[in-house]
Amino acid sequence: MSELPQAGGAVVLLSGGLDSAVTAAIARAAGHRLFALSFLYGQRHAVERDAACSVAAAMGVVRHVVQTIDLRVFGGSALTADIDVPKPARPATAEPAARTRTLPPPPGGIPLTYVPARNTIFLAFALAYAETVEASAIYLGVNAVDYSGYPDCRPEYIRRFQAMADVATRAALEGTPIRILAPLIDMTKAQIIRRGLELGVDFSLTHSCYDPEASGRACGRCESCLIRLDGFRAAGLADPAPYQNP
Amino acid sequence: MSELPQAGGAVVLLSGGLDSAVTAAIARAAGHRLFALSFLYGQRHAVERDAACSVAAAMGVVRHVVQTIDLRVFGGSALTADIDVPKPARPATAEPAARTRTLPPPPGGIPLTYVPARNTIFLAFALAYAETVEASAIYLGVNAVDYSGYPDCRPEYIRRFQAMADVATRAALEGTPIRILAPLIDMTKAQIIRRGLELGVDFSLTHSCYDPEASGRACGRCESCLIRLDGFRAAGLADPAPYQNP
Repeated sequence: MSELPQAGGAVVLLSGGLDSAVTAAIARAAGHRLFALSFLYGQRHAVERDAACSVAAAMGVVRHVVQTIDLRVFGGSALTADIDVPKPARPATAEPAARTRTLPPPPGGIPLTYVPARNTIFLAFALAYAETVEASAIYLGVNAVDYSGYPDCRPEYIRRFQAMADVATRAALEGTPIRILAPLIDMTKAQIIRRGLELGVDFSLTHSCYDPEASGRACGRCESCLIRLDGFRAAGLADPAPYQNP
Repeated sequence: MSELPQAGGAVVLLSGGLDSAVTAAIARAAGHRLFALSFLYGQRHAVERDAACSVAAAMGVVRHVVQTIDLRVFGGSALTADIDVPKPARPATAEPAARTRTLPPPPGGIPLTYVPARNTIFLAFALAYAETVEASAIYLGVNAVDYSGYPDCRPEYIRRFQAMADVATRAALEGTPIRILAPLIDMTKAQIIRRGLELGVDFSLTHSCYDPEASGRACGRCESCLIRLDGFRAAGLADPAPYQNP
């Protein structure tokens, strides 16, 4: 990457999923040295951690910090608490009993997989990391198209976090504010996949499933798997990730 | 407290210090049920944790969550990294060699004890906690008078965090935003101490020192001890906390 312009350091939130891998590739293509940041937060899909490490290595990051935090003490979400991940019924397959536990409908269209203030916590840590390594930017892979129900995936949220960050740090007071960038926010999944391919992202390293089996194979049926599979279909490509029901 | 009006739940950030104890007492006096939140973040003054637990018990909180996070992986501060806590030279005492290690002057007047994005991280967790327990407010004991050098202790910072929080959560989208309250922000230390006494705060439970000895006794010489001692003097009172050099 020595031919790229030097844009300084950038912290990239790396979940191990498809979106954050493409986001990292975009930051790298902009000439940034990458400082990756991942979280273990009591979620069931800890296999994402291994995916995040693989992606970080493939991207040639300067450093990869994996921060362990405990969001389970607060309770309240399918991704951190002990309730089943919701899976839309599919006409082709009978729904096994273990999957049919009824959950209340999400109020206001907010998905059951919403974790309270998750992106705010992630961005707060990213801000600390960015200030410490003197990075000029934070990249995160939030998307308002596929995840329109999440309050903290919307452009207005990112704008207000930026406004807060602009007065929150020593760096900001000294005239070098840290930019919060969400390059995928208005893209469809198919557009994200095509952009990732252009930038050489190896999607076989990425992992999106909310409910993988122990071996790491994706369920192919949760909200996240369905969005990903639809994205590959719309892009006219096959998903190289392993699935339980190919 | 059964005679108080019911103001709903409030998350209180409890460090174990004097300011956060008075803040908790103010939230209790406003009729809130208290949900305390403390952090262990690799700081040297872990004795604050015990103080926080004592204060939480004395305040009759509903629940006290102690969140362990690792800020040392990012480096960069006297409170988390392995450098000496700065102590102003005092005319009466010779400065021992171990204390005189020269540190660069704080740029822009920001103290060396500044921890990157600390309050943003703390408030982000508080937001998750508040949303989960359906609290209507978050109380934090930041103070812009004694800690004017900290970017994230200023009113403008609190205002912008509020603006961000107003779009960040499910609670906000559903019309029940969480208020961020910093009741001490414009008070002098003497005013804070007098207000705490009016509200029955037991200051002997609180702890402020950046560099206590193992027994928990305060050094009496770091920035935080000096501000506290000056505050008690200005309030015309004796500090009941134990000091190494009384």
